[in-house]
Amino acid sequence: MATEEPSQGRRFDPVAGGRSRHRDEAEIEFNRIVAFSDGVFAIAITLLVLGLTIPAGEADLSRELLNDRGDFLAYAVSFAVLGRYWLAHHRFFSALERFDGRLMGLNLFYLAWIALVPFTAGVLGDYGDRTEAVVLYAINMILVSGSFYLQLVYSDRAGLLRAEADDYERRQNAPITLVVVGMFAASIPVSFVSPLVAELMWVMTFLIGRQVARRIRTAA
Amino acid sequence: MATEEPSQGRRFDPVAGGRSRHRDEAEIEFNRIVAFSDGVFAIAITLLVLGLTIPAGEADLSRELLNDRGDFLAYAVSFAVLGRYWLAHHRFFSALERFDGRLMGLNLFYLAWIALVPFTAGVLGDYGDRTEAVVLYAINMILVSGSFYLQLVYSDRAGLLRAEADDYERRQNAPITLVVVGMFAASIPVSFVSPLVAELMWVMTFLIGRQVARRIRTAA
Amino acid sequence: MATEEPSQGRRFDPVAGGRSRHRDEAEIEFNRIVAFSDGVFAIAITLLVLGLTIPAGEADLSRELLNDRGDFLAYAVSFAVLGRYWLAHHRFFSALERFDGRLMGLNLFYLAWIALVPFTAGVLGDYGDRTEAVVLYAINMILVSGSFYLQLVYSDRAGLLRAEADDYERRQNAPITLVVVGMFAASIPVSFVSPLVAELMWVMTFLIGRQVARRIRTAA
Amino acid sequence: MATEEPSQGRRFDPVAGGRSRHRDEAEIEFNRIVAFSDGVFAIAITLLVLGLTIPAGEADLSRELLNDRGDFLAYAVSFAVLGRYWLAHHRFFSALERFDGRLMGLNLFYLAWIALVPFTAGVLGDYGDRTEAVVLYAINMILVSGSFYLQLVYSDRAGLLRAEADDYERRQNAPITLVVVGMFAASIPVSFVSPLVAELMWVMTFLIGRQVARRIRTAA
Repeated sequence: MATEEPSQGRRFDPVAGGRSRHRDEAEIEFNRIVAFSDGVFAIAITLLVLGLTIPAGEADLSRELLNDRGDFLAYAVSFAVLGRYWLAHHRFFSALERFDGRLMGLNLFYLAWIALVPFTAGVLGDYGDRTEAVVLYAINMILVSGSFYLQLVYSDRAGLLRAEADDYERRQNAPITLVVVGMFAASIPVSFVSPLVAELMWVMTFLIGRQVARRIRTAA
Repeated sequence: MATEEPSQGRRFDPVAGGRSRHRDEAEIEFNRIVAFSDGVFAIAITLLVLGLTIPAGEADLSRELLNDRGDFLAYAVSFAVLGRYWLAHHRFFSALERFDGRLMGLNLFYLAWIALVPFTAGVLGDYGDRTEAVVLYAINMILVSGSFYLQLVYSDRAGLLRAEADDYERRQNAPITLVVVGMFAASIPVSFVSPLVAELMWVMTFLIGRQVARRIRTAA
Repeated sequence: MATEEPSQGRRFDPVAGGRSRHRDEAEIEFNRIVAFSDGVFAIAITLLVLGLTIPAGEADLSRELLNDRGDFLAYAVSFAVLGRYWLAHHRFFSALERFDGRLMGLNLFYLAWIALVPFTAGVLGDYGDRTEAVVLYAINMILVSGSFYLQLVYSDRAGLLRAEADDYERRQNAPITLVVVGMFAASIPVSFVSPLVAELMWVMTFLIGRQVARRIRTAA
Repeated sequence: MATEEPSQGRRFDPVAGGRSRHRDEAEIEFNRIVAFSDGVFAIAITLLVLGLTIPAGEADLSRELLNDRGDFLAYAVSFAVLGRYWLAHHRFFSALERFDGRLMGLNLFYLAWIALVPFTAGVLGDYGDRTEAVVLYAINMILVSGSFYLQLVYSDRAGLLRAEADDYERRQNAPITLVVVGMFAASIPVSFVSPLVAELMWVMTFLIGRQVARRIRTAA
């Protein structure tokens, strides 16, 4: 009886340490995590627009708009980046069969870096030609991708993924994520020579990351 | 067996290239796309209010409020515009039977222009009598409507719409969207002569766009 | 056949003019309206905090915080006001059995005034002792309550409410809403004599509005 | 008949005084409360990023970023704090079996203090070494935890919790919450001697609060 009692208490604790719950068993709780994550993504992606501002009462509006071209670029890049992370998060959560308190903690840790993007993107928009701004943005991206990788690895090891999805996540999603981490890390020393080249490396990652990951997988 | 395996991996990938999924088959994933889109709309429409600001400590508050009349107008117009786009998006998604990765990408592309409206509306509120501000807003609207049109056309061609809705979307929603694109495009040269006339063209589009589209359809 | 066809097109149009849909028949669409409204409420209520700001690097922080007491009061009042409107909206939508395009339009119109509250509350926080700020806030509240009243009356006349709820809404919710409109309207001339007295009228409305509405109902 | 009528009216009123409703009986309404709360949490946690700003056009960007280290720390601490409160709220709501109008009111009161965190965290980020900023943040946290405790106690007394969860909430969640309130209260006098020590007390609460609560419970 005494040993029954605590487990009963835990029955209503979706974040009880060590015990995972099936997504159907705790549907409302699972949906809340998803909805909260989507909320943070939607707000962060929409706050990017606050990086774009034109003060009232300027004489030469065309020039002001042209001066903002760095901000426009940062908006476009960051919207694409956050959009792609959202798609990956979306795909990952649709592959989850169970969840536990540790995964919720990792997810919050991940969202903390997602929510930081409007700031680092804003700095990049204003200082796109400075090494510091490029390093700041690269660190943000490494932490986003890195904490996403932690979620993938943890849920794989803890047996939270569907049997088939597990295979997919390990063989495709995880390597792509590592490639992204590697490319952003490599761009940091490059940015000390040329911030522009470092930024071009990011665009390349975005365009050919999937191919690189596939080649690495095949070679392995 | 080897050919089975990749398709199994794809079973859990809602954005797998080329394969669409039925909205009932992947209900949570479909709902997430809808919820994310609604989140971006709700945030963008509520951020419009940030275009309205009165600094603290002004001597003549009435005059400050009157000076903000351009901002109030931009708030009203943009709320109406975003509200109407939301209704159209709402209607379009209720007509979808299936979705795939490409549609999700197009939807994100579309949302990037929706999320930009608080910025272009803010510039319009501060510089309503300048050609540049009118052109900026018109371009934003063309890209919103244009990327919505892309979604309509793509989902029609890819067979993602319900059979009857398909007919409705092609015959009503798509032509209206094209009329809107055309009117905003036509307002750009006009704005070089008179920004005010260009803005009146937008209001007209809003009021009689549906009738124009119906006439075009009947004539065709 | 020709008369059948347009009605088929309408089957997938949740905002088709004139035809209402049952909330169970179009559950996802109904939920989207609710979710969108909740989103606007949640964002507007959370944006209130942006009215509170302390510039960095001030010598006397205590005095800065004391100077912000008008802003704290405006935050508290506006959070309470928006919270109460949300509860009323919540109750109203739980009484709806059907919805149509006109109700969605009215709801958007209503949300436009809800989303404006962070602005008018911010002005009130900075200029609480000025007639203009009090008038501005009162007008905002009249438009919020007035457009809510329009929703109540319209859905009652169009037969969108559940049979029993209909009775409740007409007999309780609608009169309370009218009392609120009346009190805010009455506070406008008062604010030209004393902004403070006008503000006390609002607090009174909040505290005893329900009792006043009940007395009026009983007397009628 | 006359006594039946008011109760019929109440059947559609999710916030009717005194009568609670089962979460399954009013699923949409219950989900709306949860979604609204999640919205406020998601927005508040994402608005924290607005405390981080670098003005455009600075000569020494590295120094500006270093000067922001207080803001980065406040962001990290507040994200962790809000994240943990969200987890606790999540757990509490999953333990609820019924809800009533009073709980909804208490929840709104609680959310008002949650939504205030971006402001008090921003002040703490700019003035981390000042007693006033530490006191302001501590008061905010006491009110957050205190109003959460009110929800726990009320729902326990009003019989709104599931039978087993009730036991869990009373025996674990409630004592932890009280320990948090006590630690933040104790940090206020300490902050007059040393703001830094007061802040270290918060970090300790965060790290060992659970253990302290367990010891108190065992001793009782």
